[in-house]
Amino acid sequence: MFRWARAFSNCVQAHISLTTISIAAASSFFNNASMASPSLRQYSFQVFRDVPPLRQMRRQLVLDKKTVGFVPTMGALHEGHLSLIRQAAAENTDVFVSIFVNPTQFGVNEDLSSYPRTWDSDVAKLEQLNDEFARLGNATGRITAILAPTSKVMYPTLPPSSEVDGDGSFVTITPISKRLEGASRPVFFRGVATVCMKLFNIVQADRAYFGQKDVQQTVVIKRMVQDFHVDTEIKIGDTVREHDGLAMSSRNVYLGDRRRTVGLVLYKALKSAENAYNSGKLARSDILGAANSVTSQVLSEQQALSPSERVLYEVDYISLADPDTLDEVESIDPAKGAIISGAVKMTPLEETKPGEDCGLGDGQVAVRLIDNLIFKPRA
Amino acid sequence: MFRWARAFSNCVQAHISLTTISIAAASSFFNNASMASPSLRQYSFQVFRDVPPLRQMRRQLVLDKKTVGFVPTMGALHEGHLSLIRQAAAENTDVFVSIFVNPTQFGVNEDLSSYPRTWDSDVAKLEQLNDEFARLGNATGRITAILAPTSKVMYPTLPPSSEVDGDGSFVTITPISKRLEGASRPVFFRGVATVCMKLFNIVQADRAYFGQKDVQQTVVIKRMVQDFHVDTEIKIGDTVREHDGLAMSSRNVYLGDRRRTVGLVLYKALKSAENAYNSGKLARSDILGAANSVTSQVLSEQQALSPSERVLYEVDYISLADPDTLDEVESIDPAKGAIISGAVKMTPLEETKPGEDCGLGDGQVAVRLIDNLIFKPRA
Repeated sequence: MFRWARAFSNCVQAHISLTTISIAAASSFFNNASMASPSLRQYSFQVFRDVPPLRQMRRQLVLDKKTVGFVPTMGALHEGHLSLIRQAAAENTDVFVSIFVNPTQFGVNEDLSSYPRTWDSDVAKLEQLNDEFARLGNATGRITAILAPTSKVMYPTLPPSSEVDGDGSFVTITPISKRLEGASRPVFFRGVATVCMKLFNIVQADRAYFGQKDVQQTVVIKRMVQDFHVDTEIKIGDTVREHDGLAMSSRNVYLGDRRRTVGLVLYKALKSAENAYNSGKLARSDILGAANSVTSQVLSEQQALSPSERVLYEVDYISLADPDTLDEVESIDPAKGAIISGAVKMTPLEETKPGEDCGLGDGQVAVRLIDNLIFKPRA
Repeated sequence: MFRWARAFSNCVQAHISLTTISIAAASSFFNNASMASPSLRQYSFQVFRDVPPLRQMRRQLVLDKKTVGFVPTMGALHEGHLSLIRQAAAENTDVFVSIFVNPTQFGVNEDLSSYPRTWDSDVAKLEQLNDEFARLGNATGRITAILAPTSKVMYPTLPPSSEVDGDGSFVTITPISKRLEGASRPVFFRGVATVCMKLFNIVQADRAYFGQKDVQQTVVIKRMVQDFHVDTEIKIGDTVREHDGLAMSSRNVYLGDRRRTVGLVLYKALKSAENAYNSGKLARSDILGAANSVTSQVLSEQQALSPSERVLYEVDYISLADPDTLDEVESIDPAKGAIISGAVKMTPLEETKPGEDCGLGDGQVAVRLIDNLIFKPRA
């Protein structure tokens, strides 16, 4: 059944280092295809920088009756991504992974330039996964294609705009995109929907995989697929967490020890709300009250410490919403359940101590954490 | 090579009369699937009201290595549509035609309710075409599928909005969509791009066919396909004209004799501009001056007549634009050529005469005519 992936290794297109690519500056937009090619590595998957050769491979897979599972990423792969890729390999013969830091989902003043770009370690992780899949034999699929397009490939006619009123070709999904994350990041879901529509059209996957951690993204993408009749099934993988519950995120590398520990406050707040729901509470005030008391108490404790010991943060929102529309609910309908979600901005450390692990950027990069829990309907 | 189309005739899904469907009123949005089924006719093509069965047919065509040419229409088929279908049949084994009057491309005060709906005569014309194709044998393809979806199928989650700030799932292509037709019809190309993205995802055609008459539409759709990597080639068919040059349009049935004759002014004006270009002129003022002198002179002549004899009209715009961006040009680059396009609103007749052919709506429906000519680059 399988054409083993190493069959493609002799047609690897390019060894690429995304760390050399400046995607942020529109002025360099048309030059960002230049890249270092220090060594021609052999991969167990084919790496595509452009669409036509990927299309050719995809067409052959259709004729061979293979199935494609697609995992779109912005690189900086962590266990959450790997979990989605494992799910995709279990359900498809071929897994396509895209690595593209999408400029249009970052607002003008957001953290595009500081978003981690880790091509070499990403590829190493994907190779390890293919080794793992090889050991499983025909019980699972393989990663056969990586799509790592340039900005010019993804935005071929106009430089990608991050302005709310900027010109370009966009997909907008409202009113869902205006809520929660969209309230503080007005171009975010326009950028996500736009790049996903492009990627879906390129890959033409049977199934695409998204993590539950970005819950609003899953709702927006499912709505887009439904409204635009995209012929790809959307599958949602559980949020993967550290041992203590912190949701995995590419941005966590910026936290460092101190902020990582205190950053757990978001998860604790959501769990407290979940306990309230599980104990029979349905009213918004009861559920959100449980969460807010956790965030307030932890913040008070931190504020009492000295600047070299403490971590300050701002709660952006904690939301209790309908699982389909993301409309805020006053009272949970036990037949529908709800989504509790939140965002907390961990501000830069005020003072650091000698030898302290402050994370990438030395504790000076603000890190916005998001997390959510699904309240399942009650029987 | 061909699976002859009549193989599908025993699985016709529904006999439908689009004239019974009220698409305009949002209040009846979720009820518009109801339709009369007076007789179960056998067609030479399969008629689809919903997506999954069409997908099944489409998937089989891929495996059989057939090719699909797609002609999207709003019904009210005329020789312009038939010409596109002939081209599609010449270049593909299977032709899919969609008939859907798309509410989101009509502004709140525009002519959605008066747009002609002529299901029975449309189907008859398509049957005649298939007879014609049958006589040509294997030299040409066949119409094998008609997609006539309900509004609920095309807009499954929210009622389709025609408000500029209305919520929904939309594709926007700017700045092209703001120019020319978009200047007077702000939601028009949002609606066109949105419905075409849906239809393209449903049909997954190898090629899709659009008429040159709607030149801005062709530019917007080609841009959308490029920017979103839609895997369908866009082909543009020449504008089909009446013997005297009037561009064919579904709206022409509302003209009647008198307005039809005077409506030719737009074509004459564009031809006058073309003559100026062909005689060596490149300056905007020379080219547009030639066109404007025609529209002014004809209007003066009409204004001199009595209300029962004359036809009044308003020139919405005459544009001289870059063929790729539709930016207005001050001087034609002879290496690129240009597009001259215009829109003229034929106002209702002031007085009618006994026995006069005033067209559908008795001369009381304002008719907006558009037309264009391509100035080819000079060698």
